Amino acid sequence: MLLPEQIDFEGPFPCLSRRLRLGVVGGGRIAGMQAMAARLTDRWEVVAGAFSSDPVRAKSAAAEWYLPQDRCYASFAEMATREAARPDGVDAVMITTPNHLHFDSARAFLEAGIDVLCDKPLTNDLAEADALVELVQSTGCIFGVSYVMSCFPMIRQAREIVSRGGIGKINQIHVEFMQDWMTPDDFADAPHVKWRLDPAKSGRTSCVGDIGTHAAHLAAFASDLALTDLRAEFHVCGAPKPLEDTFFAWTKHAGEIPGTLMATRLAPGNRGGLRLRIFGSEGGLEWDLEECDRLKFNQFGAPDQIISRGHGHGVSPQVERLVLSARGFPEGVIEAWGNLYTEFAMAVAARRDGLELSPRYLGLPRVAAGRDGVRLIDACVRSNEARGAWVEIT
Amino acid sequence: MLLPEQIDFEGPFPCLSRRLRLGVVGGGRIAGMQAMAARLTDRWEVVAGAFSSDPVRAKSAAAEWYLPQDRCYASFAEMATREAARPDGVDAVMITTPNHLHFDSARAFLEAGIDVLCDKPLTNDLAEADALVELVQSTGCIFGVSYVMSCFPMIRQAREIVSRGGIGKINQIHVEFMQDWMTPDDFADAPHVKWRLDPAKSGRTSCVGDIGTHAAHLAAFASDLALTDLRAEFHVCGAPKPLEDTFFAWTKHAGEIPGTLMATRLAPGNRGGLRLRIFGSEGGLEWDLEECDRLKFNQFGAPDQIISRGHGHGVSPQVERLVLSARGFPEGVIEAWGNLYTEFAMAVAARRDGLELSPRYLGLPRVAAGRDGVRLIDACVRSNEARGAWVEIT
Amino acid sequence: MLLPEQIDFEGPFPCLSRRLRLGVVGGGRIAGMQAMAARLTDRWEVVAGAFSSDPVRAKSAAAEWYLPQDRCYASFAEMATREAARPDGVDAVMITTPNHLHFDSARAFLEAGIDVLCDKPLTNDLAEADALVELVQSTGCIFGVSYVMSCFPMIRQAREIVSRGGIGKINQIHVEFMQDWMTPDDFADAPHVKWRLDPAKSGRTSCVGDIGTHAAHLAAFASDLALTDLRAEFHVCGAPKPLEDTFFAWTKHAGEIPGTLMATRLAPGNRGGLRLRIFGSEGGLEWDLEECDRLKFNQFGAPDQIISRGHGHGVSPQVERLVLSARGFPEGVIEAWGNLYTEFAMAVAARRDGLELSPRYLGLPRVAAGRDGVRLIDACVRSNEARGAWVEIT
Amino acid sequence: MLLPEQIDFEGPFPCLSRRLRLGVVGGGRIAGMQAMAARLTDRWEVVAGAFSSDPVRAKSAAAEWYLPQDRCYASFAEMATREAARPDGVDAVMITTPNHLHFDSARAFLEAGIDVLCDKPLTNDLAEADALVELVQSTGCIFGVSYVMSCFPMIRQAREIVSRGGIGKINQIHVEFMQDWMTPDDFADAPHVKWRLDPAKSGRTSCVGDIGTHAAHLAAFASDLALTDLRAEFHVCGAPKPLEDTFFAWTKHAGEIPGTLMATRLAPGNRGGLRLRIFGSEGGLEWDLEECDRLKFNQFGAPDQIISRGHGHGVSPQVERLVLSARGFPEGVIEAWGNLYTEFAMAVAARRDGLELSPRYLGLPRVAAGRDGVRLIDACVRSNEARGAWVEIT
Repeated sequence: MLLPEQIDFEGPFPCLSRRLRLGVVGGGRIAGMQAMAARLTDRWEVVAGAFSSDPVRAKSAAAEWYLPQDRCYASFAEMATREAARPDGVDAVMITTPNHLHFDSARAFLEAGIDVLCDKPLTNDLAEADALVELVQSTGCIFGVSYVMSCFPMIRQAREIVSRGGIGKINQIHVEFMQDWMTPDDFADAPHVKWRLDPAKSGRTSCVGDIGTHAAHLAAFASDLALTDLRAEFHVCGAPKPLEDTFFAWTKHAGEIPGTLMATRLAPGNRGGLRLRIFGSEGGLEWDLEECDRLKFNQFGAPDQIISRGHGHGVSPQVERLVLSARGFPEGVIEAWGNLYTEFAMAVAARRDGLELSPRYLGLPRVAAGRDGVRLIDACVRSNEARGAWVEIT
Repeated sequence: MLLPEQIDFEGPFPCLSRRLRLGVVGGGRIAGMQAMAARLTDRWEVVAGAFSSDPVRAKSAAAEWYLPQDRCYASFAEMATREAARPDGVDAVMITTPNHLHFDSARAFLEAGIDVLCDKPLTNDLAEADALVELVQSTGCIFGVSYVMSCFPMIRQAREIVSRGGIGKINQIHVEFMQDWMTPDDFADAPHVKWRLDPAKSGRTSCVGDIGTHAAHLAAFASDLALTDLRAEFHVCGAPKPLEDTFFAWTKHAGEIPGTLMATRLAPGNRGGLRLRIFGSEGGLEWDLEECDRLKFNQFGAPDQIISRGHGHGVSPQVERLVLSARGFPEGVIEAWGNLYTEFAMAVAARRDGLELSPRYLGLPRVAAGRDGVRLIDACVRSNEARGAWVEIT
Repeated sequence: MLLPEQIDFEGPFPCLSRRLRLGVVGGGRIAGMQAMAARLTDRWEVVAGAFSSDPVRAKSAAAEWYLPQDRCYASFAEMATREAARPDGVDAVMITTPNHLHFDSARAFLEAGIDVLCDKPLTNDLAEADALVELVQSTGCIFGVSYVMSCFPMIRQAREIVSRGGIGKINQIHVEFMQDWMTPDDFADAPHVKWRLDPAKSGRTSCVGDIGTHAAHLAAFASDLALTDLRAEFHVCGAPKPLEDTFFAWTKHAGEIPGTLMATRLAPGNRGGLRLRIFGSEGGLEWDLEECDRLKFNQFGAPDQIISRGHGHGVSPQVERLVLSARGFPEGVIEAWGNLYTEFAMAVAARRDGLELSPRYLGLPRVAAGRDGVRLIDACVRSNEARGAWVEIT
Repeated sequence: MLLPEQIDFEGPFPCLSRRLRLGVVGGGRIAGMQAMAARLTDRWEVVAGAFSSDPVRAKSAAAEWYLPQDRCYASFAEMATREAARPDGVDAVMITTPNHLHFDSARAFLEAGIDVLCDKPLTNDLAEADALVELVQSTGCIFGVSYVMSCFPMIRQAREIVSRGGIGKINQIHVEFMQDWMTPDDFADAPHVKWRLDPAKSGRTSCVGDIGTHAAHLAAFASDLALTDLRAEFHVCGAPKPLEDTFFAWTKHAGEIPGTLMATRLAPGNRGGLRLRIFGSEGGLEWDLEECDRLKFNQFGAPDQIISRGHGHGVSPQVERLVLSARGFPEGVIEAWGNLYTEFAMAVAARRDGLELSPRYLGLPRVAAGRDGVRLIDACVRSNEARGAWVEIT
């Protein structure tokens, strides 16, 4: 058994009886950040990787990750086969390749019985997303999607306040993701930029898929209201680009709740401007990634409250479990990634133990949420092509 | 001559040779705030009013405003006639009645040769707005519109930064006005609320006309780019209401610059959430009414700058002229109203002196900006009726 | 009667039956700001002044203030005599001269039976301050001191929370006033700076008297705990100066409550950094002049609350009376000055009506608070001379 | 060789040829946080520990840390001996015991040739601190002190701005550490509180040693000006306690630069209120732990700048090296701990490679800085006993 016999569902996440074995598929800064987070949790060790098909880079990756050459694979296919065959093979992989490779690699590991944590957007294609959902169902594997924004303690607290009626009936939901890194006109050819604007790799959208999906997931997650309809228009601001760098949308969440959704990478002065606002009949909630440790909670007629991390100061025990450092120390995105990897570890361990842990216990975004992101992209594309007509998200 | 012979156009506004005489048409808290502001400038004295058609209330108003009974009129029509006939009659009036009375009262004073500062929205009807524009032209009177938000020093500074190319070519413009005072479901019958939801008084919109016009004017004023097109949808959040309490719009400014515009009174935790963001190819500007003394200015690649009031710390002499208190003292909305009344006084005095002062010197919003607000309302109504179709603002 | 027969002590301040007549003694930007504030309240009109002993400047002042020549006096002595003799003479004067002239001018008006609102520090000399206290007592005149910082609504709210035990027993009080306008080394000769560093005019201190007194009054006012002891050291930062530009102090408030007090004009990036913090056994309060509309209120174990202006959102009716504009509109220092002038008007009117209004109703700082400021200066000087020894404030 | 042959001193920290082996001495939440951080860097693996002298707890620690029983020691002495004898023994240990055990355990490991990263305050006794400095010199071991606050990128940026004259000549330095966790009167007996108020474990001070040392180190580190003199008074706020919970100090830094230093744990509403302000003749710097990603930088006469993490936006390459996540993602204290562990790893690896890395390259606080903290405590105690007299820090 990886999990202890008794789990205190109100308390901290339990220790496992061993570290889980993680493989890395892909590379780059995001992989590095995720690996930091996985290690931080002490529930994972990175034991294998398919870092590059280029043999020189694969070799240097081995040194960089302290891995033996024979566990640095030239392809994910080889990795899936070989690792599945080893008694000490990976329990799970993280996939951080460019979008167009998510599907094939995820399928390879799922079919090999290996659990997957995959970057978003899940796929560039809705049929592939559907196929992954089925594959997860048929294999019984755990499939997490790296909607890391939903793993900040203050987002979990927001969700809890909503669910206990703390802001009454929801009236409006607004979310936006404002960045600025693509501002310079001469930037589109930079290597870390180029693939994100290349339809062959990035898919039919750039900004929608990359950051719009984060924003949309966050709104649905925190409000517990699925996105059902939208109208969207795409924009290319500044220098011409093959794909949109900006989009605006109006949304409906379940129950015809209206809202707005927008994202751009050309908003100078905005680094991580992911901002969520949920307004209800009795109160409101506001959160900003750049001030991730704070949640503004208004109960109409009373002063605004600023909830911050720290047990007993407005943070519930269920949320406190995701706070890694003592009260008063700021936390950041690596800690949020850590929460994602901890919840993924719980789910992976439970599967191995023949258990299933409730979604109320583990907020971990699953494959269906990943597919919702692909549906969002598809709906945005359809609406934009129809000059911003309302479309259903299906 | 009311103005001095020489005006230093780079320096503070000059003194007048006498206080101008102001009449008040309407009443309520907004009239009170405006009167505070007018007095604060020491360029105006309130000498007459049509505060109410109810004789009891008109009498108590006389005491409250320290006015003789014979200058407290039972109707604006009587007031216009009588004041125009007096050698010491009002130079100008402020109109703060409910919207549906703006047109008739403004016309009465213009026709009597009396200058007007009128609340927004200018009228409930586009034809009336057009008529006022013509009447201003034919009479030569000064006609200010109380878009007070454009009179904050930091908004003037933003406009100046835009005009000198400080953020490069504009790419996007976002503005929103989020309030919460209409949140409670049982609120719609409160007397200060009721008329704002009554189409007979408020016109075809409530939220659009009341606060949407402020937001739209601010975006056009600071960017110096007129609004040309929009698509809008109206919402009634919470309790049913005869008019919208919330609306979302996408906009185009001159040159096809895309943007968003939204306003609501059901955003708990937002008191005066008027927020403007202008993003260009080289930088961005952000301003929030709730922090009116600060302007965020980002030049891409450099740290964010926070410009605050105070000469020589990033504030130009032209803007400094609108700063009333010493550096380090916060200012608020009454000071902004004061700036509006000072600029109105300059324009009124110049007309009496046979001069005209350039719009670069006096930012005072004029009747054409008022008509733009009515056009905005009209366009929003047309678009909303067409399920959010794009419409031209004409 | 100036006041109405019935006063609703829970509601807004009542109207007076006429505007009170105000005289101006002194000039400069502070006089201008105060005059704006006095006019804003509509309870005062400026009818006379001793603006300058220079006949040319006195004449230009007459034009600037729209006053007849015969009410622009060449000296405060003449003004006191003549105005006292007129049936329509001033009810009160504001004194904004350099510090060393406060005493003589205040005495002249008090002895003429004219109420006084005097700038702080009250005097440069303790004996003079004592004499003023006695003179106020013997003449029965109203004597306000312009501790404007205590007139912000949020400070009044803080005081109210303290007085109802909202933060338990007070444990610590910290206050600081950080400015930066004297930073440049070549600044000390600028005309608006020079007199503040000249012992003949500014007295035995510069920074202590000018802004330290504001800070100390604020701490004592909001906590309702007098300052009893302190130790202080003076510093000259940057260029040599005849008087301190910076000082640090430790304080004791009544009941041996420890605290700190510090002020400087050489803190680049601080414009109006007047910050008050009061910590008790059950909670804490924090306020910053640069965000004057907000009061941070923590009840230990609960989320921080941000109280902002606006009735029914954590602001009591007694405080609401000092809020001039509608909820959601920012207010600034001129509004706070307005509150000071309104409360002064209430007190002046009540004296004329033979009434006295309770200090709980009118927070107006009186002559004793002015003397406390002079005692503070004296204690700081004594302590500094004794190398920072503890001294009693007497 | 652990380090590569060529190091790019302007670029990111290089990879090591193997993970370094870390031992843990002590336990509790701080040990857990540090271990997260050490793992996050991927430069360390925890291979041994002396977690507890209680055999039951030692056993459970083995499971929790995934360690074999034989590397979970019952005492640090045994651990030092045995690990030193193993070919795969620990390269270094982290010491997170209560203060009174730092000296003996640090000595044991240093004498065994094992590098040490020790919690602050270094020791409870000045002679012991001196002895450690000597021992480090004689053994040649690396000795880091966990002044983690100096490892935030924005603090490094502040130091760099100071060192290049960005704020001119320093005039004043203010630092404070305000917490609130000890507020409740009935708290002093809680187990996580008790030892910190017990002189046998915490030493002669509680608040000074625990958080005052952090604050003092930060001020000296960022300004690059040693603390030379101080005067201090201790306070017990709220419930009686054996040691101070609050202290105030005035300081002098090298060159007679005046400043203030204060810390408390009874400031309700303050979680991690570590705030540093450095004011110079041409500008100022301000940083607050609760907003650790931002550095306020004012150049007098220009708008305030807010420097945030992210290469090319005001952050130098030398600082960028300490930024772990992409621009726009917030970072927190675990990332800062990670930087401490990375720099410690560099130093440890360099020693094994026979190299020494310059303090300009590695900001890692060393044993001398630890002794400065003990000297600070000693000076505070001496000054407090002398009723707040000025004392030299020696």
